[in-house]
Amino acid sequence: MNPVELILKKRNGYVLTTDEINFFINSYLSGAITEYQMSAFLMAVYFQGMLPDEITALTDCYIRSGKRIEFPEGVITADKHSTGGVGDKISLMLAPIAAACGLTVPMISGRGLGHTGGTLDKLEAIPGFQTSYSMEQFRDLTLKHGVCLVGQSEQLVPADKRIYALRDVTATVESPGLITASIMSKKIAEGARHLVIDLKVGSGAFMPTLSRAKELAELLIRTGHAFGQQVTVVFTNMNAPLGTHIGNALEVIEAIEYLKGNFLPDTQEITEALTAEMLLSAGLAKDYEEAVQHVRKVIADGSALQKFREIIIAQGGDAAVCDDYSRFAPAKYELPILANQDGYLQSIDSRSIGYALIGVKAGRMQVSDSLDYGSGAILYPKVGDQFTSGQPIGTLFCNDQAAGEKAIERILSAFHLSPDPVPKEELILGRMTLADLQ
Amino acid sequence: MNPVELILKKRNGYVLTTDEINFFINSYLSGAITEYQMSAFLMAVYFQGMLPDEITALTDCYIRSGKRIEFPEGVITADKHSTGGVGDKISLMLAPIAAACGLTVPMISGRGLGHTGGTLDKLEAIPGFQTSYSMEQFRDLTLKHGVCLVGQSEQLVPADKRIYALRDVTATVESPGLITASIMSKKIAEGARHLVIDLKVGSGAFMPTLSRAKELAELLIRTGHAFGQQVTVVFTNMNAPLGTHIGNALEVIEAIEYLKGNFLPDTQEITEALTAEMLLSAGLAKDYEEAVQHVRKVIADGSALQKFREIIIAQGGDAAVCDDYSRFAPAKYELPILANQDGYLQSIDSRSIGYALIGVKAGRMQVSDSLDYGSGAILYPKVGDQFTSGQPIGTLFCNDQAAGEKAIERILSAFHLSPDPVPKEELILGRMTLADLQ
Repeated sequence: MNPVELILKKRNGYVLTTDEINFFINSYLSGAITEYQMSAFLMAVYFQGMLPDEITALTDCYIRSGKRIEFPEGVITADKHSTGGVGDKISLMLAPIAAACGLTVPMISGRGLGHTGGTLDKLEAIPGFQTSYSMEQFRDLTLKHGVCLVGQSEQLVPADKRIYALRDVTATVESPGLITASIMSKKIAEGARHLVIDLKVGSGAFMPTLSRAKELAELLIRTGHAFGQQVTVVFTNMNAPLGTHIGNALEVIEAIEYLKGNFLPDTQEITEALTAEMLLSAGLAKDYEEAVQHVRKVIADGSALQKFREIIIAQGGDAAVCDDYSRFAPAKYELPILANQDGYLQSIDSRSIGYALIGVKAGRMQVSDSLDYGSGAILYPKVGDQFTSGQPIGTLFCNDQAAGEKAIERILSAFHLSPDPVPKEELILGRMTLADLQ
Repeated sequence: MNPVELILKKRNGYVLTTDEINFFINSYLSGAITEYQMSAFLMAVYFQGMLPDEITALTDCYIRSGKRIEFPEGVITADKHSTGGVGDKISLMLAPIAAACGLTVPMISGRGLGHTGGTLDKLEAIPGFQTSYSMEQFRDLTLKHGVCLVGQSEQLVPADKRIYALRDVTATVESPGLITASIMSKKIAEGARHLVIDLKVGSGAFMPTLSRAKELAELLIRTGHAFGQQVTVVFTNMNAPLGTHIGNALEVIEAIEYLKGNFLPDTQEITEALTAEMLLSAGLAKDYEEAVQHVRKVIADGSALQKFREIIIAQGGDAAVCDDYSRFAPAKYELPILANQDGYLQSIDSRSIGYALIGVKAGRMQVSDSLDYGSGAILYPKVGDQFTSGQPIGTLFCNDQAAGEKAIERILSAFHLSPDPVPKEELILGRMTLADLQ
């Protein structure tokens, strides 16, 4: 087989065979196919797409490039994946809740880049918390505590790690086939038998429209099914940041508050929906209502918070943060954020808010940038809220006052007001499982 | 400017500004943009195309990456470019004819690769003939002898040299915008004020249909015009090899025979048409008829052949080949090619013939392959000819008998016969100049 002919075949819109995909990916990994041939291939895939069989072959190649964790029969493994957002700390609540409900949660997460945060960075805001483990250690910790939250080891899907890095610098990220293989290979290799995917929809989100999101969902579900994994996709409207806290330590604090029973409407709706879907998929509840009751119970009886403490201790962290938030990295300045217009909040450009907070090092522009765990913002406004100029709408936490003031300016310009009342938005737009495709 | 954002902009179908194109190309040449970003960009251009202004900016970037030859005012420079074919030795006749007619012909040619031959390889079949000169030497030789036939120096459009090599291995050759910048940058930098382009049309040719060819022609003409070059495109039907001789020394012999007045109908029609267009464009004839008479006159009076001898001597070659073909590299074996079917010749897969002759080293598969100048084939059949099984239809020249017999088999399978009579094909399908676009 000739690399140029395979690029040409995909460029001209033909379907590649499993052998051809194996050859292309494996030759790339061995160095026989160059970076520039791979990037041309990826761009051809961006334009011509991939059929489900091609995506399954690619996913299989990805998985076989590394190790795959197998959990013992009888251990019910489940995980959640989110397509990324601003202020999305759902994993921090969901993982201990699901484990407290009896699921085993092998959760491999990523770091933040650009406007989106990353679960790993948030966890590392807890002093001492370790996220780097071998796949054997990860498996052992997961089995022992029912949950473990780590980063992607070098042994897990190295093919995706290399190819994703290339996609990131060649404008070939936004391809449903490539996205599917990238997400599913990791979630299959980590050993989760049930997977709930939070697929964010809306302008500025991962998928701009619900119909595009449904196409991707179908690929995700079918690919999981090909590997024996049961996938549930929940479509969520995430035009606005989730909850009120954005920033690494701030988001852990909000998650701890949640586990203590101090719910906010939007985080509650999303957390309960995603966790309930995990329980339903795994057969730990007979219906959605029962699943939600189960979720609420482990919060009310303290077992979810206790599970969170257990994770922190097991992964080397300081569990006392749960009772004493001053143990987190400090922010020297707390600057009030005041509304600068009158009106009704029509939309929030959460991408802009994410980028604004990079200015106070709550996020990073490049992988090598360092983070200031203590910085970030608390923002109360939700779509539909009424604004009065001068009214306090949040607080900016930072260690550099000038950078903080600049960030406030950018945050304020991300709130788009209307003179007329604006209806509240639906948060959950639908769900999809294999049953919906048959 | 950010390379990824520029790739994204083109990928999403937007038009790049001149500054953006300059930045992208110059950053690539300086090493700030990687090969893999360039190849992703090229694939995005393949799918989204480029507008005339973008192509002009790209062409300008290409030209400015090297030196540009300026000929003195009053010197009427003209050249021909062909999009490549099997057995296309027109340049070998056209260059001395045009020079004998009073034009100055600074001709920069390429080598053969895959099924197509290259003018440089053919010239180097003449013992001693040199094709590697600096741009200054090339300019001086052209001014002194009215014509010079060389390869692309390192100083001429190095950007295209690098980017073409990348396109070749990333399946991004067939893009009208990239093709236009590649052809025109070289032909403008070499200093030709008039350019005739032989644009081959047909299945297996450079452009599959006349309408696609016309789109490319328009880009070529407009780009030339932006740099003060007058371009004439002649659309030719080249589904079959041109003339009868294919192979390096064999094609030089056919060209010498032509310059001695021994014409074949197809080479005569194409050579006269292309050379006449050069004279017309340059104002050296008042109409097409007069231009053709001029071309025939310099053959009849021997001045075109004399010009060819002068070129050979000026470039270090053995001009005695013109009178003694045994001075060319020999072919040990001359194997008869016999028709193996009855019928009428409906089509010739000239690409297969080109590939068949790579087997006897008349062409090369890779740039590093060596050539056997003496090998090749003489093939008499033209579309419409009647075949009788066992009838001699040509001769295979080779130095390896087994390889020669294999080549004959492949050549025979490239002739597609019909039981019914087949009409002859038109060779010239039309022409286009700037006047046709206004």
